[in-house]
Amino acid sequence: MTTDFAATRAMFDLPEGVVYLDGNSLGPLPRAAAARVAQTVTAEWGKLLITGWNKAGWMDQPARVGDRIARLIGAEAGTVVMGDTLSIKVYQALASALEMNPTRRVILSDTGNFPSDLYMADGLVRTLGQGYALKTVAPEDVFDAIDETVAVTLITEVDYRTGRKHDMAAITARAHEMGALTIWDLAHSAGALPVHLAEVGADFAVGCTYKYLNSGPGGPAFIYVAPRHAEVARPALSGWLGHESPFAFDLGYRPGRGSERMRVGTPPVLQLAALEAALDVWDHVAMEDLRARSLHLGDLFIDGIEAACPELTLATPRAHDMRGSQVSFRHPEGYAIMQALIARGVIGDFRAPDILRFGFTPLYIGEADVKAAVAALSEIMASRSWDRPEYKTRAKVT
Amino acid sequence: MTTDFAATRAMFDLPEGVVYLDGNSLGPLPRAAAARVAQTVTAEWGKLLITGWNKAGWMDQPARVGDRIARLIGAEAGTVVMGDTLSIKVYQALASALEMNPTRRVILSDTGNFPSDLYMADGLVRTLGQGYALKTVAPEDVFDAIDETVAVTLITEVDYRTGRKHDMAAITARAHEMGALTIWDLAHSAGALPVHLAEVGADFAVGCTYKYLNSGPGGPAFIYVAPRHAEVARPALSGWLGHESPFAFDLGYRPGRGSERMRVGTPPVLQLAALEAALDVWDHVAMEDLRARSLHLGDLFIDGIEAACPELTLATPRAHDMRGSQVSFRHPEGYAIMQALIARGVIGDFRAPDILRFGFTPLYIGEADVKAAVAALSEIMASRSWDRPEYKTRAKVT
Repeated sequence: MTTDFAATRAMFDLPEGVVYLDGNSLGPLPRAAAARVAQTVTAEWGKLLITGWNKAGWMDQPARVGDRIARLIGAEAGTVVMGDTLSIKVYQALASALEMNPTRRVILSDTGNFPSDLYMADGLVRTLGQGYALKTVAPEDVFDAIDETVAVTLITEVDYRTGRKHDMAAITARAHEMGALTIWDLAHSAGALPVHLAEVGADFAVGCTYKYLNSGPGGPAFIYVAPRHAEVARPALSGWLGHESPFAFDLGYRPGRGSERMRVGTPPVLQLAALEAALDVWDHVAMEDLRARSLHLGDLFIDGIEAACPELTLATPRAHDMRGSQVSFRHPEGYAIMQALIARGVIGDFRAPDILRFGFTPLYIGEADVKAAVAALSEIMASRSWDRPEYKTRAKVT
Repeated sequence: MTTDFAATRAMFDLPEGVVYLDGNSLGPLPRAAAARVAQTVTAEWGKLLITGWNKAGWMDQPARVGDRIARLIGAEAGTVVMGDTLSIKVYQALASALEMNPTRRVILSDTGNFPSDLYMADGLVRTLGQGYALKTVAPEDVFDAIDETVAVTLITEVDYRTGRKHDMAAITARAHEMGALTIWDLAHSAGALPVHLAEVGADFAVGCTYKYLNSGPGGPAFIYVAPRHAEVARPALSGWLGHESPFAFDLGYRPGRGSERMRVGTPPVLQLAALEAALDVWDHVAMEDLRARSLHLGDLFIDGIEAACPELTLATPRAHDMRGSQVSFRHPEGYAIMQALIARGVIGDFRAPDILRFGFTPLYIGEADVKAAVAALSEIMASRSWDRPEYKTRAKVT
């Protein structure tokens, strides 16, 4: 397949005059999503009422949509199920993995991991007691830190701040060699670059859909359980929809088949409708094409900014095999600079303490957008137009 | 306030020719919800993109909506926060309560509780180890079973099958007298009858919004933490949006202020939009009016069915103070009977093994509906028209 990125761009509803480089935080609206959600609200909820669970297929939606995600992350059919939020899925994967490796007590993660992953691990460790511990090392030290004490690694493949990408195959192999299980957080990977969960032999993976997969604000998360673990992994969050027979209403819990046991409660049907429409775009995309184009756009941005803005320091590895689909620069006044840029219609975001983040998502971003972003940021840096009080007042969400 | 139920009925989009007595499972579509969701998709997500978190108030939505729910369940402002599913909220409340009562090991529940509550408790008990146990007794034995071993009670106020209502005030008082904490599951209470959490001194409460509150399929859950516990309860599911300062991206977790610490991940913005529209209806409702009318409709139904259908056995307590807003009858062929009834446009539901459930929600159900339901069910029972193979094949969702 050769992907037609002009065609994919036409599938999104992008506001006039905006260069949107924040799809790594919240993807834009796929044109088909509005109608799909409206149909789910009006024709399904409104007309079918309770019978929508059967007639509109709401109950099977988490597994059906999971299969569509599976294709994008190199996972086997039937291994991915949707629901909840990424943080909840992290907790589920961790709790199951620890129980599967009962002689060990260490969760290994890195200081570049998204904090919520660490917080969830911390909460689980406190609940477990019994000497369980979360150990974090610098991202570049993960490989060497995997030793015989590690029960499970909890690593986000692409660093949310720097865009640095771990070597999933090497770390997974190393973990298995040392008797550890792996959990991969694909928040900045799914829809951003090729992922080969089955091929690398990953044990668990989790991710969100509102970034590169464009499911909208609060879109549901996913969890992957390798087929070899699917009948072994015991859900700690043992909700009724993960039960073998939810509508038997038995008093005792029996885990459901395979990854479906990782379902917890009632699926978010409206959010899933938006996600289904968003996934239609991916039927037209070859992930290798996407990756090549994303790296090209990233290079173009790096070259442009480095040439024009010496005050900005590249935070993202230059090497293609060490970065995801975003490019980040550092500056002590990064927050104000980003606000000035947003005011000019180029939307990226800021991550404390000093990171300006730019996502390059070829589905709707092209070379002209990159050039416009370079020009706007260069002008802001040259004129110091960011140096105004209104750009320095931090909003609640940064 | 005297509630105008003709006016509230006009606020719902009900299909022609349907008598909908299943609002206790999934409430119908409030007319305003379709436009509200469409606006959130198109004008907010589509036009504001990532800035919607600040500009459209998405980030504050879980607490803002929580305050609207608080008013309906007799809770103090600032004590209720939205998110996740009811099962997840049960887990959170339980984990926090057990940690607050560290010398005790027993979770007390009853066999009439919704199974997912029991499953989640079971999962937590397994994760905790250390002698923690879930003990269940018959619903009518809960009060006497609260002894000095009980750390926390986990009770659903209204039984999802029989409609039997616990005495929340009495059980809460008894629990406190015995040194136990209380978690009230309000799945069949919120929007169904007056609840007085603050007045009875409840410790925690949880509930869903897609039943009597009409938020649509997969609408978010809520959790209440009593103000006296809000700065003490430590979240086990310690996600970033429950952090004191989520956008500082600190590596260490610090619980946020009050009940907001019970937030976990990104809120489901589209589902919350539907809920906000659904809550507008409640601005026109006095809960005491709703309760009186719901009991009246239930009485009418009980009298009608008992007079016409001797084969059906009432499963719901007759006494007003011992029932919620639903009426259930038992019959060994309950599944087939309900399918026959649904085929005639009267929608209730079936709960294994033999329960026919009917919800009486005065917001959109009136006396004419009750009479139509009695007539249809009476005719089905008299003619045995339920006795057909097509009514006996169980659907996935019952």
